[in-house]
Amino acid sequence: MKKLINSPETVVTQALAGVAAAHPSLHVDIENKVITRAGGPKNGKVGLVSGGGSGHEPLHGGFVGYGMLDAACPGEVFTSPVPDQMLVATKAVDGGAGVLHVVKNYTGDVLNFQMAAELAGDEGIEVVPVVINDDVAVVDSLYTAGRRGTGATVFVEKVAGALAEEGADLAAVAAVAREVNDRSRSFGVALSSCVVPAAGKPTFELGDSEVELGIGIHGEPGRTRAAHTSAQELAAVALDAISDDMPIDGTDLLVMVNGMGGTPLIELYLMFNEVQKYLEGHGARVARNLVGNYITSLEMQGFSVTVCRLTDTLTRLWDAPVDTPALRWGR
Amino acid sequence: MKKLINSPETVVTQALAGVAAAHPSLHVDIENKVITRAGGPKNGKVGLVSGGGSGHEPLHGGFVGYGMLDAACPGEVFTSPVPDQMLVATKAVDGGAGVLHVVKNYTGDVLNFQMAAELAGDEGIEVVPVVINDDVAVVDSLYTAGRRGTGATVFVEKVAGALAEEGADLAAVAAVAREVNDRSRSFGVALSSCVVPAAGKPTFELGDSEVELGIGIHGEPGRTRAAHTSAQELAAVALDAISDDMPIDGTDLLVMVNGMGGTPLIELYLMFNEVQKYLEGHGARVARNLVGNYITSLEMQGFSVTVCRLTDTLTRLWDAPVDTPALRWGR
Repeated sequence: MKKLINSPETVVTQALAGVAAAHPSLHVDIENKVITRAGGPKNGKVGLVSGGGSGHEPLHGGFVGYGMLDAACPGEVFTSPVPDQMLVATKAVDGGAGVLHVVKNYTGDVLNFQMAAELAGDEGIEVVPVVINDDVAVVDSLYTAGRRGTGATVFVEKVAGALAEEGADLAAVAAVAREVNDRSRSFGVALSSCVVPAAGKPTFELGDSEVELGIGIHGEPGRTRAAHTSAQELAAVALDAISDDMPIDGTDLLVMVNGMGGTPLIELYLMFNEVQKYLEGHGARVARNLVGNYITSLEMQGFSVTVCRLTDTLTRLWDAPVDTPALRWGR
Repeated sequence: MKKLINSPETVVTQALAGVAAAHPSLHVDIENKVITRAGGPKNGKVGLVSGGGSGHEPLHGGFVGYGMLDAACPGEVFTSPVPDQMLVATKAVDGGAGVLHVVKNYTGDVLNFQMAAELAGDEGIEVVPVVINDDVAVVDSLYTAGRRGTGATVFVEKVAGALAEEGADLAAVAAVAREVNDRSRSFGVALSSCVVPAAGKPTFELGDSEVELGIGIHGEPGRTRAAHTSAQELAAVALDAISDDMPIDGTDLLVMVNGMGGTPLIELYLMFNEVQKYLEGHGARVARNLVGNYITSLEMQGFSVTVCRLTDTLTRLWDAPVDTPALRWGR
């Protein structure tokens, strides 16, 4: 295993120290592993908290800032954060208008966020959770009852964050978060495995000309192994799976072509070209897009595609100013 | 070889089609392989053109936009663009105030940009080239007479682009570009090789516990092979090499910890923490930073660090608004 680390045990805290050093706009509580906006909560604004295992950067810490999250709590690599950590984050962002928990649908995350919400409730903070489950690849995967939560998390955090910034109440922010999740679908493909630092070896083995179709963001198995093929055919596999589950024609779409961490940007742009051609060929319009590494799986090579059926309101909230380390525009 | 491509021959043009589809703020001439800002040249503004082999994305196309480059000309992967292509770019951005060519010091790039400058001169466009040669690892490397140009290119394009946006003349823009290059140094480390699509196999072989110290951005040999070690020791190797060449103490620094394309962001933040600790321990102050993938080598795992000794003027120009696909702030 070759990684830029000092020891597997210190990866997360030392990376957090780097985040703290790099971004004066963030406050990083390294002991509790909580990233918040510098300056504390805004009175009367709904707070947005997300979190999950580390190893998916920039998710979630890179999305803390104006117009998006108020706090992120990173767990150990591919391991849920703990309820106490989520409670610290929830209390840190409470501005008196309640707190939204954006939870990717993995059993540990769901249970721990539920416990944190109860603890926060005991302290008088109203919490509403929204569970993200956009990955059409499999149901009841490793670590998951139901579908996995993946790329739509980025869309939910952006759109719900924009609405919260406008001063909407907790019910409205939660409703738009659920709406984005309901209107979004994802599918991922792996060309190589990731290596969890504590394990020190690949999570799974793939042959020299094999790919895993429907890969999870922790290297969980997808639908099937297949022979590696062209970018065009891989785009079709991903988008066939998505459009079998949700109609995409006649709609303005927000589309993300996301790298898994080890794929060069030139390949992601090439994939986006294939994704765009497929979608336009199937009667959709790609109205907004993201191309890059937004929800990763350590050094895994591969991509995922996430599609959201936009409405005028969702488009307006997507376009609203955002100022975070990983997403920044309009401000 | 597993890549997200259709065929090695079409990688660059199909990726450019993806760039065109993703970024309405850019105009992409796929036939000539030239990326410019949509809307054409600005009258009276010095134009900035850069270019080089593809495979280093987001460099250079991702830096085209307000406050940075006016055009980029990508060659085939790790291959210089041709003079005609550079001429098309130069003519496309000429607003009557002359054009700066930002040239990384590789023999092919230098010769081709020189020829393009002569051709542009024949058409009445004044061109000044600035050659970037910040990599302290080796002199007279493969493809290079003198030092290689690497990470400082990002700094030069940002700072000179900001000055051009303010309306400075060609001599002043060229002077600040040279100043940034003179005040910048870089050093890179590879944990794995890249794979050029047309070659289909790793450019070099590294053992399971070996690293290449002083790697070039095309996989060119560095100073030496060594046993893989901690992030802290790798930071010291890179920064010892840099500080042996240029004093860093008592100065405000702009520091980039750059990923080579296949390294996860969590490791880059961890490296930045080590870089920051080293620099502050050696009497410097990290006043500004970039952490992420900015000048890559396809899917290579590894990092480079680039350090620039700031002045008040350089800091102001670094902080000035920029609006490109890969760098965006303040606007």
